[in-house]
Amino acid sequence: MGRLGVDLYPLQSGVELARVETFGKFLGGSPANVAVAAARLGSRTALVSRTGADPFGAYLHRELRAFGVDDRWVTDVAAYPTPVTFCEIFPPDHFPIHFYRRPKAPDLEIHLHELDLPALRAARALWVTGTGLSAEPSRAATLGALRERAGATGDGTARAGAAGSDSAVPGALTVLDLDWRPALWDGTADDARPLYREALRYATVAVGNLDECEVATGEREPYAAARALLAAGVRLAVVKQGPKGVLALAADGTTAEVPPLPVEVVNGLGAGDAFGGALAHGLVAGLDLETLLRRANAAGAIVAGRLACSPAMPYAEEITLALDTGDASIPDHPR
Amino acid sequence: MGRLGVDLYPLQSGVELARVETFGKFLGGSPANVAVAAARLGSRTALVSRTGADPFGAYLHRELRAFGVDDRWVTDVAAYPTPVTFCEIFPPDHFPIHFYRRPKAPDLEIHLHELDLPALRAARALWVTGTGLSAEPSRAATLGALRERAGATGDGTARAGAAGSDSAVPGALTVLDLDWRPALWDGTADDARPLYREALRYATVAVGNLDECEVATGEREPYAAARALLAAGVRLAVVKQGPKGVLALAADGTTAEVPPLPVEVVNGLGAGDAFGGALAHGLVAGLDLETLLRRANAAGAIVAGRLACSPAMPYAEEITLALDTGDASIPDHPR
Repeated sequence: MGRLGVDLYPLQSGVELARVETFGKFLGGSPANVAVAAARLGSRTALVSRTGADPFGAYLHRELRAFGVDDRWVTDVAAYPTPVTFCEIFPPDHFPIHFYRRPKAPDLEIHLHELDLPALRAARALWVTGTGLSAEPSRAATLGALRERAGATGDGTARAGAAGSDSAVPGALTVLDLDWRPALWDGTADDARPLYREALRYATVAVGNLDECEVATGEREPYAAARALLAAGVRLAVVKQGPKGVLALAADGTTAEVPPLPVEVVNGLGAGDAFGGALAHGLVAGLDLETLLRRANAAGAIVAGRLACSPAMPYAEEITLALDTGDASIPDHPR
Repeated sequence: MGRLGVDLYPLQSGVELARVETFGKFLGGSPANVAVAAARLGSRTALVSRTGADPFGAYLHRELRAFGVDDRWVTDVAAYPTPVTFCEIFPPDHFPIHFYRRPKAPDLEIHLHELDLPALRAARALWVTGTGLSAEPSRAATLGALRERAGATGDGTARAGAAGSDSAVPGALTVLDLDWRPALWDGTADDARPLYREALRYATVAVGNLDECEVATGEREPYAAARALLAAGVRLAVVKQGPKGVLALAADGTTAEVPPLPVEVVNGLGAGDAFGGALAHGLVAGLDLETLLRRANAAGAIVAGRLACSPAMPYAEEITLALDTGDASIPDHPR
């Protein structure tokens, strides 16, 4: 549930935006990419989002369907155009993003009263993002969806649920991707923190990098941040430490930590979404924490080694191959 | 003076935006293109405009200079990104445009008090557009520049000036391109009309198509519209009638009418700007009305026969060639 737009990516790498001559057009928006990534791994996925009533919106519907993502809950908004996003690609670690999401992105016009609550309850996992908390009515819709999943009666207790005893998170799966994008918020991190805390009361899994953990919890030391996320209410905290790998702490005391997988970085954008898609897919599949983290980590590394984002999401066999060989540099599959 | 942005044009023609895979990036914005077109013909030109403080803004500065347009009066605005515009290309007559200029384009943040009035007075011609009237502070700046050129003391009399007796418009040249773009105005045509009337009091030349003439004057029959523009204060009215050619009426009773020049249309966008650049260049050169109109008309037709806009603006020899052969289909020059 959340962000959806058109990414315009340079067809030249290592070139500043001022000098890029041609751009390719791709489906983008973090949770949309996560849905694509999970679908590619075999999950049955759907996106809850909105677009402009325009040709780019039509493109996104077509593209979601082509990726196997159910688009029935993607509706259009007459007042705003479909957002476009430009990026610059300076490997290995500089990928500036330029958003055209003002005055407001259609995906922030998701209304609580328009949500399909039975479908939200029935889903085996729900993925929401911090950016969904950045403005109304999306903020109320995102928090409302989290509460609905938690079956909250006001005490903030997450609903007990289904999955098996081996799984990293028993019970209902509701993932909050902290996804702190200051450019997309009007206020400061201090304004965002109470909203993160509210969302964390109802989510069962939280995912974020160190900057995002600090905004949400005030902590940026990985273990302290993970513990703070658990204390805020989730059952599993996943902390992305960049070059230091990924750390996960579960409420039952289980921990896992995996190092980064070597890859020649082509474009770091989309790697986090590949990680997220594999995480969601693995959580639903009931993988143990170590396997879950290894596979998500490999999925992210594979996409970092490819130019595209949504079309570059890996197949399960590619993740297995990367883990078997210890090398995530796997050429992009022809589309 | 006015609009400036990045045009993202499909590198495929005849394809709806949803299916365009790659885009090329070009300098765009009507008055910016007019400046480029006049520069290509040999005029010394400058643009008064603004961009975002971003990589696309840097690109536009570089591109203006490469085209020989003085960019010293193009400044940046921190609050808004450089506008981008997408188009679709369905020859011969359907070229939908999708603007990303909200919440506001930097080029509408031109302030009257920041104008270089001595430079504005010294220029041999000033070109402004109706879109410049669409929002403050650009509205006050555009009207202020027109008044400054007219040396108005409140009576609305245009300043008498330089050029020779053969020229289509004796005296100071101040062109108002009616440029009615409903998508870029908050209000209706009825809201715009008084602003057009005010601008026409101070301009010496008005240019527009039939729709634009109707918004500005209430008339859409070509002769009636031209007479209404003259009555509103200009000395030369140029009415673009599309497939019926171009009509011009001067205050001294001179008239000229030229038929369209045959061309296989590739992309109609930019043709009006090529026409405008050749018109401004020819007015400054003091061409007689018939020659002026024939050359502007040929310039427009040449660009309609090319995919690009700003880079496709014709050289003087190409205009002469089109007029000599009676065929405007002249392949684009290599850049």
